[in-house]
Amino acid sequence: RSMATAVRKSLTIGLIPADGIGKEVIPAARTAIEAVGSDIPPPKFIDLIAGFESFTRTGVALPEETVEALKNQCDCALFGSVSSPSKKVVGYSSPIVALRKVLDLYANVRPVVSVSANPGEQSLIDLIVVRENTECLYVKQEQQIVGEHGKEARATRLITERASTRIGKMAFELALARPRKHLTIIHKSNVLSITDGLFRESVRAIPTNDSKYEAVIVAEQLVDSAVYRLFREPQIYDVMVAPNLYGDILSDAAAALVGSLGVVPSVNAGDTFVMGEPVHGSAPDIFGQGIANPVASIRSAGLMLRHLGYTRAADRIDNAVDSVLREGQLLTPDLGGSAKTQEVTEAIVKRI
Amino acid sequence: RSMATAVRKSLTIGLIPADGIGKEVIPAARTAIEAVGSDIPPPKFIDLIAGFESFTRTGVALPEETVEALKNQCDCALFGSVSSPSKKVVGYSSPIVALRKVLDLYANVRPVVSVSANPGEQSLIDLIVVRENTECLYVKQEQQIVGEHGKEARATRLITERASTRIGKMAFELALARPRKHLTIIHKSNVLSITDGLFRESVRAIPTNDSKYEAVIVAEQLVDSAVYRLFREPQIYDVMVAPNLYGDILSDAAAALVGSLGVVPSVNAGDTFVMGEPVHGSAPDIFGQGIANPVASIRSAGLMLRHLGYTRAADRIDNAVDSVLREGQLLTPDLGGSAKTQEVTEAIVKRI
Ligand SMILES: CC(C)[C@H](C(=O)O)[C@@H](O)C(=O)O
Ligand SMILES: CC(C)[C@H](C(=O)O)[C@@H](O)C(=O)O
Repeated sequence: RSMATAVRKSLTIGLIPADGIGKEVIPAARTAIEAVGSDIPPPKFIDLIAGFESFTRTGVALPEETVEALKNQCDCALFGSVSSPSKKVVGYSSPIVALRKVLDLYANVRPVVSVSANPGEQSLIDLIVVRENTECLYVKQEQQIVGEHGKEARATRLITERASTRIGKMAFELALARPRKHLTIIHKSNVLSITDGLFRESVRAIPTNDSKYEAVIVAEQLVDSAVYRLFREPQIYDVMVAPNLYGDILSDAAAALVGSLGVVPSVNAGDTFVMGEPVHGSAPDIFGQGIANPVASIRSAGLMLRHLGYTRAADRIDNAVDSVLREGQLLTPDLGGSAKTQEVTEAIVKRI
Repeated sequence: RSMATAVRKSLTIGLIPADGIGKEVIPAARTAIEAVGSDIPPPKFIDLIAGFESFTRTGVALPEETVEALKNQCDCALFGSVSSPSKKVVGYSSPIVALRKVLDLYANVRPVVSVSANPGEQSLIDLIVVRENTECLYVKQEQQIVGEHGKEARATRLITERASTRIGKMAFELALARPRKHLTIIHKSNVLSITDGLFRESVRAIPTNDSKYEAVIVAEQLVDSAVYRLFREPQIYDVMVAPNLYGDILSDAAAALVGSLGVVPSVNAGDTFVMGEPVHGSAPDIFGQGIANPVASIRSAGLMLRHLGYTRAADRIDNAVDSVLREGQLLTPDLGGSAKTQEVTEAIVKRI
């Protein structure tokens, strides 16, 4: 799905490396974007701040200037990764969750694809997790009270027809564009009959209301058995659409099937803005060693460009990544190799 | 962990096969219990009704008589599996979720163990998921309203200090009894800082308040990366303790690692009652063919007896199951064989 491609004189890209290895992989993605040359308008990069490190330094995880710059100056953005505090920290709230909401990036699109050693062979895993990105337990409406038997905490899980329908449409569009045209709705309506019931029904209603989606084959699965089957028979899945938290878990689960979280990209997409983001975290254990896998971020840059309508640029990035991975000579440690972030990035850039 | 073993003249066991293959595997578990002979008091079985089929027939998914019989006549019970309606069904609510609550079976203990081909070898997977069984989104407090942009549904996620502490203690006890004494707390407090924060802190506080637990090594993991790592390096886990929904997903994920949901047992345990339950569902696709794997139910019977203090009986059941699985001659189709439920059951019973 590509946004209406207004003819742009230049492409302004906000870069928010945030914490940990985000600071190593976002520069790699920038290099890849620079390498596509005239297939995109001349890129301009704006360095922006957010993250747990920013919070510990300044007390603010997501500075107002970052949000303003994204809204007023940027055509799109790339986000790195945030560290999670290991203890409860008063006043801290995840900047990535906030960004998704404040920019109304309602769809988190996470393609998980295995690269086969042989280019002629079919990929074993080739699926997309389409994750609702603004509600579910991520609305962060939580309270704690002290009751008769101690502390009691409650969180609200919000599911709306509107958000379920728009994420559902995005999923139908993606399914329609794929050879198998298969969509699995993930829910847990055997327990959450009202909230997940609404999610399920809203998505189910889409082809009834718009016949162009009738070509899509719709299935559904309870989230627990979806994770089970994802590991047992991943080939059954094509596009999966899920409420926020299930999508979070499912995309990590799917990443385990393709060798590493270090190769799985995503975009956070709204109707007027798109932000690429590797699915992996800030990996404090390997930060600073220059061995983080740049592939997820480089692919996220490609996905972002594809979403903006720059198909040729996106294809060039994807093909370069696939070729390096397939060759298997230059792999970072998460994939069993010993290459550095920079070596992998250079090899990819050379092929772009 | 065993309940105070009052000397019983007889052992009254409620059998609730419920739906689908539950009706094929609960009888198998009964046969296994009968086979342990004098290692338990003479068993009496009471057949009880619950399930979606009961609901469609009578309008009631969990008859009052079933609850009363469990409370007043039974020492323990075995539950089969329930079918989930494929559409929204007004008035239906899962009887297993209700039973856990009404009998205050606050702990769902799910050991996931792979049987190696070689008895000398160490098991590759040997972990226990300890799932809180009464709250989280399973409190089923849901409402729907019609707002400005259509339907809006909300569910409450409840996490209390009391329930988190008691499930945490159960997990510490289990960890203490194992060679590695390792416990991983599963949460998502980077998003749910108040509810999952309370779960994490309540469990963390346990060894501080009771020094006997200090021998346990405590780690923690965000649920999404826990699922990822479960697939990548399952050996890192020993005992995992999780809020209800994460535990539901994690136990299915772990089951995928040991070949089949058909071999994973559980007990729903409270302070005064225990109910065995296979982790698998009602499997409508294979129901009626006599090919359901009885192992999960037979192991659940063993786990239930172990929980009641009948260690020798439980060991005999476990060893018989392990020996049949290890031999690999009689396996049901989910494990790649072609044996029938009855053949597998008979082979196990013979070795008990
Ligand atoms: C960092 C965290 C808040 C985030 C999420 O849960 O969405 C991450 O796990 C992700 O998948 O992008
Ligand atoms: C049937 C369903 C309500 C149940 C649950 O979610 O607890 C099942 O998945 C389980 O794991 O026992």
